[in-house]
Amino acid sequence: MKQINVAILGLGTVGSSTLDILKNNQKEIARRAGREIKIVSACVKDITKKRVCDISEIQITDKPETVINDPNVDILIEVMGGIEPAYDLVKQAIKKGKHIVTANKALIALHGDDLFNIASKENVRIGFEASVAGGIPIIKAIREGLSANNIQWLAGIINGTGNFILTQMRSKASSFKEVLKEAQSRGYAEADPALDINGVDAAHKLTIMASSAYGIPLNFEAVYYEGIEKIANDDIEYAEQLGYRIKHLGIAKSTAEGIELRVHPALVPQRRLLANVDGVMNAVVVSSDAAGPTLFYGAGAGGMPTGSAIIADLVDIVKTLPAGAQDNADSVVMINTSKAVIKPMDSVKNPCYLKLRAKDQPGVLAEVTKILGDLDISIEAIIQKEPTNLATDVPIVILTHEVLEKNMNSALEKIQKLDTITDEIVRVRVENLS
Amino acid sequence: MKQINVAILGLGTVGSSTLDILKNNQKEIARRAGREIKIVSACVKDITKKRVCDISEIQITDKPETVINDPNVDILIEVMGGIEPAYDLVKQAIKKGKHIVTANKALIALHGDDLFNIASKENVRIGFEASVAGGIPIIKAIREGLSANNIQWLAGIINGTGNFILTQMRSKASSFKEVLKEAQSRGYAEADPALDINGVDAAHKLTIMASSAYGIPLNFEAVYYEGIEKIANDDIEYAEQLGYRIKHLGIAKSTAEGIELRVHPALVPQRRLLANVDGVMNAVVVSSDAAGPTLFYGAGAGGMPTGSAIIADLVDIVKTLPAGAQDNADSVVMINTSKAVIKPMDSVKNPCYLKLRAKDQPGVLAEVTKILGDLDISIEAIIQKEPTNLATDVPIVILTHEVLEKNMNSALEKIQKLDTITDEIVRVRVENLS
Repeated sequence: MKQINVAILGLGTVGSSTLDILKNNQKEIARRAGREIKIVSACVKDITKKRVCDISEIQITDKPETVINDPNVDILIEVMGGIEPAYDLVKQAIKKGKHIVTANKALIALHGDDLFNIASKENVRIGFEASVAGGIPIIKAIREGLSANNIQWLAGIINGTGNFILTQMRSKASSFKEVLKEAQSRGYAEADPALDINGVDAAHKLTIMASSAYGIPLNFEAVYYEGIEKIANDDIEYAEQLGYRIKHLGIAKSTAEGIELRVHPALVPQRRLLANVDGVMNAVVVSSDAAGPTLFYGAGAGGMPTGSAIIADLVDIVKTLPAGAQDNADSVVMINTSKAVIKPMDSVKNPCYLKLRAKDQPGVLAEVTKILGDLDISIEAIIQKEPTNLATDVPIVILTHEVLEKNMNSALEKIQKLDTITDEIVRVRVENLS
Repeated sequence: MKQINVAILGLGTVGSSTLDILKNNQKEIARRAGREIKIVSACVKDITKKRVCDISEIQITDKPETVINDPNVDILIEVMGGIEPAYDLVKQAIKKGKHIVTANKALIALHGDDLFNIASKENVRIGFEASVAGGIPIIKAIREGLSANNIQWLAGIINGTGNFILTQMRSKASSFKEVLKEAQSRGYAEADPALDINGVDAAHKLTIMASSAYGIPLNFEAVYYEGIEKIANDDIEYAEQLGYRIKHLGIAKSTAEGIELRVHPALVPQRRLLANVDGVMNAVVVSSDAAGPTLFYGAGAGGMPTGSAIIADLVDIVKTLPAGAQDNADSVVMINTSKAVIKPMDSVKNPCYLKLRAKDQPGVLAEVTKILGDLDISIEAIIQKEPTNLATDVPIVILTHEVLEKNMNSALEKIQKLDTITDEIVRVRVENLS
C-alpha cells in the first residue's frame, strides 16, 4: 500500500522526538499500521537553526501554507503549542482534508469542539492522545478500552512538574521554592512555571479526559482549579501522620446532581497506588461500573513519551484510511451527545484537612469547633502541637468528616476572621478514591 | 445505521455479565459504537436452567449450529471456555463470515495462529482482549496505545488467584494451604485450582501478550513456567527483610539472544508499584523505548470486568463494519511477522534468592559458597538464622548477583546433594524491573 505522508508544524522537543521515533522504529510502526508512515515536511520558525534530529530527508519551510496546501500530505501533526497561530492553521488544514494529530492541550480544551465540528463536516480525524498524560494511552483507554462502561469517576496525577515538587517536598523536606528551583534546573518546569503550579495545565487535561469519558462538550471554563502553591512542608507531614499523602489531582465524577470537574491538592490514603506515584510520573485511576477500578501509569511529559502518543494516533488514523470512508462519528472526532450538567463546586462534598495557626491561649479550639458544629461539620481527628521555640502561636490540624463545600467555605470565612487566628488557613480536600 | 446482532456461546458468569452490561449501558455503548449492539441469541448446555440474567428478549438454544448458521448474526461471542468444542465452533463461525470475540485464553494461546489464519482469509476479525487480565485493556495498550514503541520487556501479575494467595500469606501470615482454602470459599479459585497455582493460566496469558508485543507466533510450548506452590511464609518474610516482595510474574523480554518468555515467582523491590498490587488485582508493566515505563492495573477476572473487555472488542469491531472492507491485516487478526527466536531458559540471567535448610554444624556455609564461587556466582547478601527451638537444622538465605540460569541450575544440583542440606532448596528469581 502507498506510503502515508505526514507534515509537522513545529520541531521543538516533541517534534524532534517524534521524528526520531518514526525513524528508529520504522519497521515496527509499519507492521502495526500496515504501511509506511513518513514525515515529509516540517514547518519551523527559523529554517537556519541547527536541529538535533535528522532532517536530511525532510523539506523544511517557515511557511505553514506550504505544508497545509501540499496535496501529498495526508496527515498534519501540530506541536507548536499555544492557541494562535496553531488554531488557525489546524482549521485551514482540516478544510484541506488533512487529518490532524496534536499534542496541544490548551487548543483542544479551549477550541476542541469547534475543531471537531469542522472535522466532522470535512470527514477528517483529529487525534489528541498526546495532549493528556504524555505516553500513557489514557484517552484510548477511556474511549475504547472502557467503552462498555459508565465511568463513575476518574482521578489523575496529570501534571508531572507539580508531582515532582510534592514528591521532593516530602522526601527531602525541602521547601516549595527550593524544589521549584530544582525542577527548573532539571528542565521539568518552564522558566515561567505558572501553568504547572496554579492548576491550569491540569485543568486543560481534565477538560479533555472528562469529555472523552462523559460525551460532554469541552468545558474548561466550568473546571474548578487550585494549584499547589499553598502546600507547605508541615501540611505534608501532618497528612503523613494521619495516614495520607498530598497529591495534586484532576477529578471528574458523575453524580446525581451533575458532573464534578475539579483540580486541587488532595489527601490520598497512603495505601492507594495513586499515593505512591512519585516524581514526574503521571497516573489516572478510572472507576467504572463494569471494569471496576483501573489505573494507568506512565511518563506524563517529555519528547519521547509525547512522541509515542502522537505516533499511536498516526497509526490509528492510517489504519482507517484504506477503507476510504470514515467509520462513524465518534471515532472521527469527539461527539458530544450528553446533556449532563456540570455540578457547581459549592455542591461538592469531601472530607477536609484544615491547618490553622492560632494564638496559644485557652478557648481558641472551642471557638473554632463551635463554628464548625453550627455548620454541621463534624470532626474526625484533631492534632494540636506545642508551640515551637519562641512562637506565640500554635498549629491546629483538623480532619473533618464529609462536608458540603458551601458550608466549609462559610466556616473558613468565619474562622479566618477570628482574632485568635494568626495566619491564612490551609484547606486540603480528602479523596479516599473508593 | 442498522443494529448489530450478536450471538453468544455460553451463559455462565462471563456470558451473563456481558448480557447485563450491554443492557444496562445500552445508550453509552451505542454512542461509542455509533449504533445499537444487541445479543439476539445464546447457545447453552441446558436450556431449562434458570438464568441470573434477563434472557426475555433472547433466543435460547442448545444447538450451536443454530446461531452459527444464522445469517442475521454479525458477531459471535465465545465464552464456553476449554478447547473443544469451542475451537471447532469458532472455526465454523469464521467460515460463515462471523466476527469473533472470545475470552478463551487457552484457545487463543494454543490455537490462535490457526484461527487468525482462517480469519484472515475470510476477512473477519477476532477480538481477544478479554482473554488477558480481565477488565484491563492491556492488549489494546500494547498493540495500539504503544504502537510507536519497541517493547523492551513486559512483566505482569496476571493471575488473580495466585496474587490473592501471596498477598494473604504476607498480610495474615497464613499458610499456602489455608489461604488456598479461603480463596476457594470466596470463589476466587476453582475447585481444581491447578492451572492458577502451577502457572499454566499465567503462561497462556503471557503467550498472548508476547505475541501482541513482538509479532511472534503464539508459542505456549516455549514458555517456561513455575507456580507458587513452593513459596512458604518464611520466604515472604526473608524477602521483606531484604527489601523485596514476592509476586508471581509473567515476563516477556526482548534481548540480543532472543525473546525471554517465562512465568515464575519473583522478588520485586518493595518500592515498585507492581510490588504493591495486592489481592485479586492484576497489573502489567510495559517498558518501551519511547513511552518509557507504563503500568496498567485493574481487575484481572470476574464476570463484569471480563464482560467489559468483551464489549470493548465488540465496539471496536462494529466501528470498522460500515466501511465494508477491512482495513489492514494487523487490525483484523494478529499477524506474525517477526523472525525473533525464543531464548532458552538456560541462557536467562537473574539475581536469585536461595533458601537452604542445613545441619547446624561448622563448614556448611563454606561448602555452599565454594560451589557457588566455582560457578561464578557471587553473593550479595546472606541471612543465617539461629536454629528455632528443637530444630537441628538452620535456614540459610542467600541473595546472589546476576547469574546465568544454567550455572545456577548446576549449583543447585550440587548443593542439593550435600549431606548437610536437609530440605529441598527454594530458588526465587529477582526482578528489579528497571
